[in-house]
Amino acid sequence: MHQLIRGLFLERLDNPALRNLADSATLDYQEKIAFTTDSFVVHPLFFPGGDIGKLAVCGTVNDLVMAGAEPQYLALAFIIEEGLDYAVLEKIVGSVARSASQSRVVVATGDIKVVEKGSCDKVFINTAGIGRIIQQLSIKKIRPGDKIILSGDIGRHGLAVLAKRKELGLDFNIKSDCAALNGLLMPALKGIAGIRFMRDPTRGGLATTLNEISESAGLGVIIEEDEIPVSKTVKVAAELLGIDPLYIANEGRAVLVVEPKAAGETLALLRRHKLGRNASIIGEISARYRGRVILNNRFASPRIIEMLSGEQFPRIC
Amino acid sequence: MHQLIRGLFLERLDNPALRNLADSATLDYQEKIAFTTDSFVVHPLFFPGGDIGKLAVCGTVNDLVMAGAEPQYLALAFIIEEGLDYAVLEKIVGSVARSASQSRVVVATGDIKVVEKGSCDKVFINTAGIGRIIQQLSIKKIRPGDKIILSGDIGRHGLAVLAKRKELGLDFNIKSDCAALNGLLMPALKGIAGIRFMRDPTRGGLATTLNEISESAGLGVIIEEDEIPVSKTVKVAAELLGIDPLYIANEGRAVLVVEPKAAGETLALLRRHKLGRNASIIGEISARYRGRVILNNRFASPRIIEMLSGEQFPRIC
Repeated sequence: MHQLIRGLFLERLDNPALRNLADSATLDYQEKIAFTTDSFVVHPLFFPGGDIGKLAVCGTVNDLVMAGAEPQYLALAFIIEEGLDYAVLEKIVGSVARSASQSRVVVATGDIKVVEKGSCDKVFINTAGIGRIIQQLSIKKIRPGDKIILSGDIGRHGLAVLAKRKELGLDFNIKSDCAALNGLLMPALKGIAGIRFMRDPTRGGLATTLNEISESAGLGVIIEEDEIPVSKTVKVAAELLGIDPLYIANEGRAVLVVEPKAAGETLALLRRHKLGRNASIIGEISARYRGRVILNNRFASPRIIEMLSGEQFPRIC
Repeated sequence: MHQLIRGLFLERLDNPALRNLADSATLDYQEKIAFTTDSFVVHPLFFPGGDIGKLAVCGTVNDLVMAGAEPQYLALAFIIEEGLDYAVLEKIVGSVARSASQSRVVVATGDIKVVEKGSCDKVFINTAGIGRIIQQLSIKKIRPGDKIILSGDIGRHGLAVLAKRKELGLDFNIKSDCAALNGLLMPALKGIAGIRFMRDPTRGGLATTLNEISESAGLGVIIEEDEIPVSKTVKVAAELLGIDPLYIANEGRAVLVVEPKAAGETLALLRRHKLGRNASIIGEISARYRGRVILNNRFASPRIIEMLSGEQFPRIC
C-alpha cells in the first residue's frame, strides 16, 4: 500500500495539498462552493477516446461546471481488485494525472482500497470535487422563450464504449466525446450573464436531460431535429443497433438554457473553442406543452420524446 | 433508479442541499475547509456495533475531525451489485441517515451506480466530506515532551468484524468501537489551544499510527504498555488469534498529541464524554529514538514497535 501510494499515486499526482498524505486536505475558501461526487465503473476500462481515469476526472469536473462553478479540487478514491495488472493501474493513474492537469484541477486527497479477487471488476474510481461558484445557475431560473444550446454532436461516448465490449465484436470507429468542459464553458460562465441552467447529457442522453428540464421547470421544451448535431458514423451505428442517438450517453457535451438576448453571443463564444465547434441552438423553452419535450421534424409531425425508462446500458460510465 | 433515489435515499436523507438532486450541492463557505474521501468495502456489511453505512459516515466524519475541522457536509456514493436485497439496502441507508443526523453532518450530494451481479461484492460506499477548520493541526507542530493521549480502549473494530466472518465461526461478544468522534473532540478543538496533532488509529492500529507520527515528525514516541486501555475480552480474543491488539483497526478512537501544559485539561475534558471515559495519557514524544516507537513495560525490557508490513486483514473498513 505504501509503495502503491508513494511510488505510483503521489509520483503522478504530486502537489502541495496531496503531499502530506493526511486523510484530509486543507483548502482555502472565501466563496460559495459546489460539492459533487461520482463513482465510475465503466466497462471496459479503456475505450476509444478515453479510459476510466480520464472519465473520472472529466465527469466530476463537468458536474461542477454544470453547477456554475470553477472546478478546483478533486478527492480521488480507488477500489482495486487484487491481482490487477500493475501496468493497467499505472496507465489509469497516468490518465488521471494528465486529465487533471489539462483541466487545471488539483487532486487534493485520496484513498485506496484493495479487495480480494472476484469482489470487484478490476477497478472502480470515485471522484468528489469542489469548486467556487461563478454564476448561480438553477432550473428555477428558466423562462418561456429561453434558448436551448447543445455544445456539440451527440451519441459518441455510449457507442464508443459499447463497441469496445468484447461480446459485441463491433468496430464503428467512433471515439468517445469524453472531455472536461471547463475550458469551453468557463469563459461563458464568467463573461455572459444570461445563462440560466446547464446540464451534461450523460446517462440517458439528451432526451433524458431535456425531460428533466421540462419536468423540473414545469415548462415545455421544443426542439428541432435538424439542429441536433449527430455525426454520420453515429447515425449509422445507432441505426444498426436500433438505438436512438437522443438516448445515448455523452461525456463531453453540455445543454445550456440561455435567455434569448444572450443566445447569439453564447453560441459564438462556444463555437470559437474546439469542443464547441458544432454548438447549435436546438430549440427553446415554451409555456405550452408543460412538462413535455416535443421534437419537430420538417418531414414528419411533431413527436413527444419520453424519458428513458430503466437504464439502457449498464456501466457506460 | 428514479424510485431508488426518491423512494429510499431522498426519503431517508432529505435536506435542502440534497433536495434539488443536482449533480452538485452548492454550499456557503467563508473559512478554511478540510476535504477528504474514503471508500468502504467492509465485509460483512453488518457486524456487532455497526454496519457499512454507519462506518461510511463515521469514518469520514472522523477524518475531518482529525484534520482539526468541524464536519459539515458529506457526499455519498453507492456502488450496488444487481440483485442486492432491497431490505439490506434500506437498512444501510437508514443507518447512514441515523449516523449523519447523530453526528450533525448533512448528506449534501450523492451518486448511485448499479453493476451486474458478480462485478462487486454486494455494496461499496464512498463518502467524501468537507468541514471548516477550527484549529490547524499538523504533524510538524509536534515537539519533544508533548504528551500522547489515546481516547479509549483499542482492538474492538477489527475483532468485531473478523468474528462476524462466516468462515471463522467465532463469537467473542466484542462490539466495534465504530463512532463519530466530533461529539467527543470538537469541544477540545474549540476550547484547548495546545492540541498539536490528531489521528485515528484505523487500518494497522495504534502501532501504525504511532509509527507514522514518529516517522513524519522525525522524533521518538515512547509509550507505556500499562497505560494503553485494552478490554479483557479483546485481550483474550487477540491472544487466541495470535494478533497484537496494537495492530488491530479501530473506528472510534483517536490519538492526540498535546503540548505538556494542556495534557491534563484535555484528558479531563475527554473523560467527561461517554466515548472518552477510558482516555489515557499513554506516553510522550522524545528527542531520543528518532523515527522509532518504543514500548515500555514494567516487567520486560523496552521493545521497538514496528509498522505493520502489508495489510493484516483485508476489508476491515
